[in-house]
Amino acid sequence: MSVSHAPMIGLLTDFGQADGYVGTMKAVMLGIAPGMPLVDLSHDIPAQDIATGAWTLGAAWRYFPEGSVLLCVVDPGVGSARRAVALEAGGRRFVGPDNGLFTHPLLAAGGAVGGEARCVSLDRPAYHLAGASATFHGRDIFAPCAAWLASGTPLDALGSAVEIGSLVTLREEEPRRDGQTWIARVAHVDHYGNLITSLGPDLTQAALASAEAAVRVSGHTIRQRATHFAAGPGGEPFWLQDSSGALAVAVKDGSAAQMLGTRRGDEVTLTYVEGNTHPDK
Amino acid sequence: MSVSHAPMIGLLTDFGQADGYVGTMKAVMLGIAPGMPLVDLSHDIPAQDIATGAWTLGAAWRYFPEGSVLLCVVDPGVGSARRAVALEAGGRRFVGPDNGLFTHPLLAAGGAVGGEARCVSLDRPAYHLAGASATFHGRDIFAPCAAWLASGTPLDALGSAVEIGSLVTLREEEPRRDGQTWIARVAHVDHYGNLITSLGPDLTQAALASAEAAVRVSGHTIRQRATHFAAGPGGEPFWLQDSSGALAVAVKDGSAAQMLGTRRGDEVTLTYVEGNTHPDK
Amino acid sequence: MSVSHAPMIGLLTDFGQADGYVGTMKAVMLGIAPGMPLVDLSHDIPAQDIATGAWTLGAAWRYFPEGSVLLCVVDPGVGSARRAVALEAGGRRFVGPDNGLFTHPLLAAGGAVGGEARCVSLDRPAYHLAGASATFHGRDIFAPCAAWLASGTPLDALGSAVEIGSLVTLREEEPRRDGQTWIARVAHVDHYGNLITSLGPDLTQAALASAEAAVRVSGHTIRQRATHFAAGPGGEPFWLQDSSGALAVAVKDGSAAQMLGTRRGDEVTLTYVEGNTHPDK
Repeated sequence: MSVSHAPMIGLLTDFGQADGYVGTMKAVMLGIAPGMPLVDLSHDIPAQDIATGAWTLGAAWRYFPEGSVLLCVVDPGVGSARRAVALEAGGRRFVGPDNGLFTHPLLAAGGAVGGEARCVSLDRPAYHLAGASATFHGRDIFAPCAAWLASGTPLDALGSAVEIGSLVTLREEEPRRDGQTWIARVAHVDHYGNLITSLGPDLTQAALASAEAAVRVSGHTIRQRATHFAAGPGGEPFWLQDSSGALAVAVKDGSAAQMLGTRRGDEVTLTYVEGNTHPDK
Repeated sequence: MSVSHAPMIGLLTDFGQADGYVGTMKAVMLGIAPGMPLVDLSHDIPAQDIATGAWTLGAAWRYFPEGSVLLCVVDPGVGSARRAVALEAGGRRFVGPDNGLFTHPLLAAGGAVGGEARCVSLDRPAYHLAGASATFHGRDIFAPCAAWLASGTPLDALGSAVEIGSLVTLREEEPRRDGQTWIARVAHVDHYGNLITSLGPDLTQAALASAEAAVRVSGHTIRQRATHFAAGPGGEPFWLQDSSGALAVAVKDGSAAQMLGTRRGDEVTLTYVEGNTHPDK
Repeated sequence: MSVSHAPMIGLLTDFGQADGYVGTMKAVMLGIAPGMPLVDLSHDIPAQDIATGAWTLGAAWRYFPEGSVLLCVVDPGVGSARRAVALEAGGRRFVGPDNGLFTHPLLAAGGAVGGEARCVSLDRPAYHLAGASATFHGRDIFAPCAAWLASGTPLDALGSAVEIGSLVTLREEEPRRDGQTWIARVAHVDHYGNLITSLGPDLTQAALASAEAAVRVSGHTIRQRATHFAAGPGGEPFWLQDSSGALAVAVKDGSAAQMLGTRRGDEVTLTYVEGNTHPDK
């Protein structure tokens, strides 16, 4: 991969922001790569919640310029036999534990950008902090390796090659079909209480093109649709295509999660008539 | 306006910090303006609360060097007919929805610094992300336009001219007089529970110069005053001039909001004798 | 001290992140030191909690490159007679109130790195914002002084010399011995609910080398130990050496603080047999 853009490092963790863990990683990185731009993606992934980390990375990584390094640490297995890795996929570089965090860029790899995916195991202590601990690889292994990578060290220098096919991916997110109905999940509940589903851009576009489409979640059937939040009806839920392309359920100036009592992982179904065309279109 | 300082971009949103929305905007900006300094002002404005966003911007914008760009996204009307704008006022540049967020710099414009205010509508898709969504203009329109502006693109290039007088401003904040008493509001409750009122620097200075001044809020009458927090009495509320110049009510080592049961928007009155001089002065 | 690394400024406050106080300080600093890298260590120190601020700084400051400036503002005495200071200790520079925040670098000073500690009182208004308030020295005094220092202004220029021995340090943290038992405190409860004790690296290493060691906290006796979090037993507490070198109590995939009902400051004891060797070693 040729890195054509100015490098930067994005950070995704479940460390929270109170303890100084994130700032310590940044200090380590800037000691290796002075002046490197650092972008916080999230540090409020629920503790140990690899699936939410993977989802959040999946929605954001394409917006980082090609060549960016994404440092991702949601790592309940720190110190255990789980591998510490760095990989190239989809034109970006990723550093963190091999536990499924990188599911979305790995599934997307081999597409139009960035060429083939490649991966190494971070097994070269020369690129780690001296005396690395068994409990904070974010500080001692991942942060320094991300900084070396962003400042020009080739991926291969950081460790031994790892088969891409051997990396952990989380596969639970695919919607499945039952007749006219797609059965999916609430993949994420965001800050506003919007319910973002695992129904992706293609299914959402098809539903938008359909004359009638019904979304069912938490015992409610939602037929109202809107093109944007302010266009929704007042006081009741509606569905729309959100900024990630997915089908989402929202309440105007309110929280759908609160109104419907819905949580991450709850089932969502979408029923629509194929081939029809919605009168608004 | 001649930009004499190194550019930077300040960010103010109601996105929270868990979902990756802010980091995605930053990644987009750094792709356009590599190495641009980015400063978070707040991402914890209450969801859709334009008035709190405007207040927070009002207290902070003058501390950004002239020429800085302030990217502000509290945007319940995203995707609707509300205008997306960029403007120059008070020597800084502002990018976001035309919904009142920019009230304070607009009211201050035409003063000593920065010359006349100017504004454009962000109607040139060449400066937006390709395929802009209807639900996340922060990522697709405001962030790229802020980055182009900060990296030297003239304001006029971003869109068609808009009359400054047509921009939305929120006017509810002015204190009004009734005899010896000024009637105002709690404009903000801060992290410490301090009650920051809409009584500005001039009224506060006059009250400080007065031999007797009484502040009434939530059924309490507060006559004690102090020059700084540690000088206040223990265990009871007092008033002082806070760092924005406004009159504020505080409790030493405690929360005035909690002790008095006060919330943002509650009425505050100030009664003082004009022309007198406080013995401490 | 010769500053051999690229400068940066780390920030530690109890300001929270909602009000714009931190962003305002950053805007002030970048106006003085354009492009200076800024690293947030924490802004979520509990309000006015100097001891937690000192502990958080103590765990992190060594990871900042030599020459870094640490701007620390947990400052209940702002505006009072407490001194505003800048100091060099342990190879880094520190700016903030003289109230104990800098206890750990001061106790460490005179060691292998950085030479002797030196300190000045920030009594030169030329290096402050014009018209400094009595209520926000973070913005008006500490931020500008930190920025001047990081961009090359000598420490001595910022104010009059202060005796290092006269600076406030917090001394409550030392464990004491009673026979075979060390009596200490929970120094910090982190984001995951891990209990990080004031039992430092030497005592923790000795306990790890011992065949039997018992940790008592909140009425529970904990004999299980582990080398890392994932190696702990399921559903019950264990102890380990955490990433700061201290003895910590944890629960795998859970919160020790919640399970044991423990809070910061609670007593912890460690009993172990000296000279023995644990079979795992």
